[in-house]
Amino acid sequence: MQWHKTLTPLGRQYSGSSLAGRLVGLTNLRRATPAAYRKVRDIVCTYERAGGIGSDLQLTANEKQANDVIMALKLAEYQRGIMDPTQFAPGYHIFQMLYKIKQSPLFKVISSMPKGGALKTHDTSMCSSEFLIKLTHKPHLWVCTREDGRQYEIVQFRYAREQPSSNHQDCSWLRMEELRESRGDRNVHEYLRARFSMYPLSRPQSNADAWSNMMSIFRLVDGLVKYEPNWGEYYYNALKEFHADEVQYVEVRSLLPRLYSLDGQKLQVSDTVKVYNEQLQRFKQQHPDFIDSKLIYAPLRHIDAAKLATHVKLCTELNAAYPELLIGFDLVGQEDLGYPLSAFAMELLKLPQHINFYFHAGQTNWYGSPVDENLVDAVLLGTRRIAHGYALCKHPLIMQLVKQLGIAIEVCPVGNQVLQLGTDYRNHPAASFIANNIPFVISSGNPSFWRTTPLSHDFYLTFLGIAPMNADLTFLKRLAKNSIKYSALKDEDKAKANEKWKLKWDKWIDDVIAQRDELFVAEAKRKAEVQK
Amino acid sequence: MQWHKTLTPLGRQYSGSSLAGRLVGLTNLRRATPAAYRKVRDIVCTYERAGGIGSDLQLTANEKQANDVIMALKLAEYQRGIMDPTQFAPGYHIFQMLYKIKQSPLFKVISSMPKGGALKTHDTSMCSSEFLIKLTHKPHLWVCTREDGRQYEIVQFRYAREQPSSNHQDCSWLRMEELRESRGDRNVHEYLRARFSMYPLSRPQSNADAWSNMMSIFRLVDGLVKYEPNWGEYYYNALKEFHADEVQYVEVRSLLPRLYSLDGQKLQVSDTVKVYNEQLQRFKQQHPDFIDSKLIYAPLRHIDAAKLATHVKLCTELNAAYPELLIGFDLVGQEDLGYPLSAFAMELLKLPQHINFYFHAGQTNWYGSPVDENLVDAVLLGTRRIAHGYALCKHPLIMQLVKQLGIAIEVCPVGNQVLQLGTDYRNHPAASFIANNIPFVISSGNPSFWRTTPLSHDFYLTFLGIAPMNADLTFLKRLAKNSIKYSALKDEDKAKANEKWKLKWDKWIDDVIAQRDELFVAEAKRKAEVQK
Repeated sequence: MQWHKTLTPLGRQYSGSSLAGRLVGLTNLRRATPAAYRKVRDIVCTYERAGGIGSDLQLTANEKQANDVIMALKLAEYQRGIMDPTQFAPGYHIFQMLYKIKQSPLFKVISSMPKGGALKTHDTSMCSSEFLIKLTHKPHLWVCTREDGRQYEIVQFRYAREQPSSNHQDCSWLRMEELRESRGDRNVHEYLRARFSMYPLSRPQSNADAWSNMMSIFRLVDGLVKYEPNWGEYYYNALKEFHADEVQYVEVRSLLPRLYSLDGQKLQVSDTVKVYNEQLQRFKQQHPDFIDSKLIYAPLRHIDAAKLATHVKLCTELNAAYPELLIGFDLVGQEDLGYPLSAFAMELLKLPQHINFYFHAGQTNWYGSPVDENLVDAVLLGTRRIAHGYALCKHPLIMQLVKQLGIAIEVCPVGNQVLQLGTDYRNHPAASFIANNIPFVISSGNPSFWRTTPLSHDFYLTFLGIAPMNADLTFLKRLAKNSIKYSALKDEDKAKANEKWKLKWDKWIDDVIAQRDELFVAEAKRKAEVQK
Repeated sequence: MQWHKTLTPLGRQYSGSSLAGRLVGLTNLRRATPAAYRKVRDIVCTYERAGGIGSDLQLTANEKQANDVIMALKLAEYQRGIMDPTQFAPGYHIFQMLYKIKQSPLFKVISSMPKGGALKTHDTSMCSSEFLIKLTHKPHLWVCTREDGRQYEIVQFRYAREQPSSNHQDCSWLRMEELRESRGDRNVHEYLRARFSMYPLSRPQSNADAWSNMMSIFRLVDGLVKYEPNWGEYYYNALKEFHADEVQYVEVRSLLPRLYSLDGQKLQVSDTVKVYNEQLQRFKQQHPDFIDSKLIYAPLRHIDAAKLATHVKLCTELNAAYPELLIGFDLVGQEDLGYPLSAFAMELLKLPQHINFYFHAGQTNWYGSPVDENLVDAVLLGTRRIAHGYALCKHPLIMQLVKQLGIAIEVCPVGNQVLQLGTDYRNHPAASFIANNIPFVISSGNPSFWRTTPLSHDFYLTFLGIAPMNADLTFLKRLAKNSIKYSALKDEDKAKANEKWKLKWDKWIDDVIAQRDELFVAEAKRKAEVQK
């Protein structure tokens, strides 16, 4: 029985569903001869592989050589993991694995890979803890501390000439210098390092618990970064850190807070955007290989419709003033709390159509709840991308729409784990996005708070832990290209952006080939260490 | 703009994909008026709800009343969970939550629900620990123990008149009575209770670790249950425990081991089936509301093709001798180890076509590995059901085939958690099965080893944790009916089975309505306790 013959020609013109229909219609599967079974198996497996993310790309001869290196490193880690799952980083919490990942030659290769853009970042969770600590060494800094038995706790920071007066917290102000003197420089440094990340809370009891811990860091950092001279410095440094991680384009979701000056004055929101603009121009001048950066105005979602209306109005005004820079709107904060998007639809639809939505949606495990339906609303309101979309697989119709409308999902693997949506990376729903060829990009969310690199850790864990075993350089290349394709750049700027990226990419391919032996030695050494 | 109007008539005749196409083709979503947005939102949400598991069933007036009770209890737990996730059992490990679940009025209702059949059970992991302990009180039992410092360990059980001689383990034999005398009755009882479940290993390091712990329990239990008088008693008691959990039909995957007698003789495999048959007839006679039980011959998969050929031959012979009882073939044991199904295809295709395959497949997190492709092979080899299918969402084409061929997935939520495929029930891939209307049944796997009821815990966690918020009695009814629909019963027997189930179901519906007030009081009390 040559049932497989009727299946040709096989290719993209067949949707999975019509292929399935044909396979089913033809025969009783139990009557297959071994030869027919083998043939159909080949067809199905080929079809499966041909449908995934990156399958549309061809590799050059050079890229194929680099791919051989990358796949050898990947398969070494993968196979070691199958033999002994405790050796497989994507099976565990990032907090346990950060050091191990640093030693991985595959991670080294991915770190140096030109990744295109980072499309989901948040204004005050982009820089490393070390940078935040540096800010605490600036003059005129006051800290409000609370004593709890032998422990002290820093509740708030504030730059000021004189001791700040207004404070609703139960704490007392002193100068940062005094704190350092009384507690010891090194102790304060260690304390800050701990407070600026979620590491102390490595076993939170629930996602609400993890969120509340994260929000407390945002609040603590506020007093440091909202200081007018620091805001620009923070952003400039963030671009620098992302650039060092081989990111050439950055979109920032910002609350656009009003900044304060040393004499206690509050500046206007437009000043905040102005600072962004100045620093961006300076950064672009000094880094000609950098593409660009854009802002998405993203106030907190825990508000009422009236308040939202003022945000929509403000966004419209700021976009008019900075049409190239401030290009989108979103709502941020824990999605499980507050109103669902549908409650804001009336107000949201008033935003001028040329300002795009880039909604957070589906960052929840509560299937079928009003929060879960944000995915429906995000799409029906015309969102251009969806941040997280973790719950998308529970919504097949929306998944179809997302694919057909070309709405990219901003997948944040590490963030989803830290905020307790999932644990093992191998269960991340993005595996289904890959299998169904749903457009997505890799993002990091708030890397500052989990001590990861701007994008490399998320890329590494996606490549090794979420993607199928055979996902290769075409997969990585597609993700990098997606980050430009689905960016807020104008079409003509995308072409230029691709050129800038391609220059670095080709160079990187050569580097990987050149480092082949060195990488293999490192991997062999690692393997030997594990076996000891 | 009345774009939604062109969408009618809307119903099952539209596949998700064509509906998506229509929605997309009609307009720029950003141009929607609030009224149009509302209308389309209604259509999409209705469509989503109408497509899930159970949506084909209508409730009677009585069932609607019972449904109100059930949904009130469910939403109370759900809402409490959203407020405080630490109160939500499906977010945690069963070992932590067993006691809490026992107190749930919703669990009480589900415990008494007639569930139809249990289609995935394993021969020696069906009975409670208490029953196993009872077996250790029978005369002529020897234990082989090993001392490890202050700890002793039971390595093996064996019934024999004289001290057993052959033993490849490093341990020494003594009579069970002697052990009880020297260690104390209560200590031995506690020890056995711990050894017969996986509870001591509540934080295994990996799924391989959890598997190895589970296999060690199987090995320990072997000496108890393979004793010829015990084998039948175990099976009879298993049917009794399942029946008490409102299960009326049971399919057992059995290794069909050769049993041993008191004088050390090994019986034939056909004797093992004969014991099953005798006990089943006895049980059916004494329980007229019980439907039936079937055997699936399921040897361990960690073998070579030559060995498999002998299993296929044996299965064919046993089926000829017991055509009503032994009706299927499968391979069991940790899927990540040993050969994939494809390596056995030649031999498997030799099994007569009237003996069905009920393959384990996709019980893995290793996406794209040869193990992961067992899902492809199971379907292409014509399997009737798939045990676990945990990785199915990573294979959209196979998912389509499964749906169109009516291959039911045997979903084992608790087992998947205990064997470390996933943690939070809200991330279980069966949520996608529900959304995509993939046929499935609820199974428990090895409830003996995790101290759960035969099916109630898995039903409860599925209903509350995996299914969407609004999944109601139609969902539960569909799952119960599926267990008969996708059973190995012949069509004419399915009709009779449905009648037997329906009798109990109608009675249960009346009971739920009658217990309404009592249940609500219990739920209110529970809520008050949590708030304290």
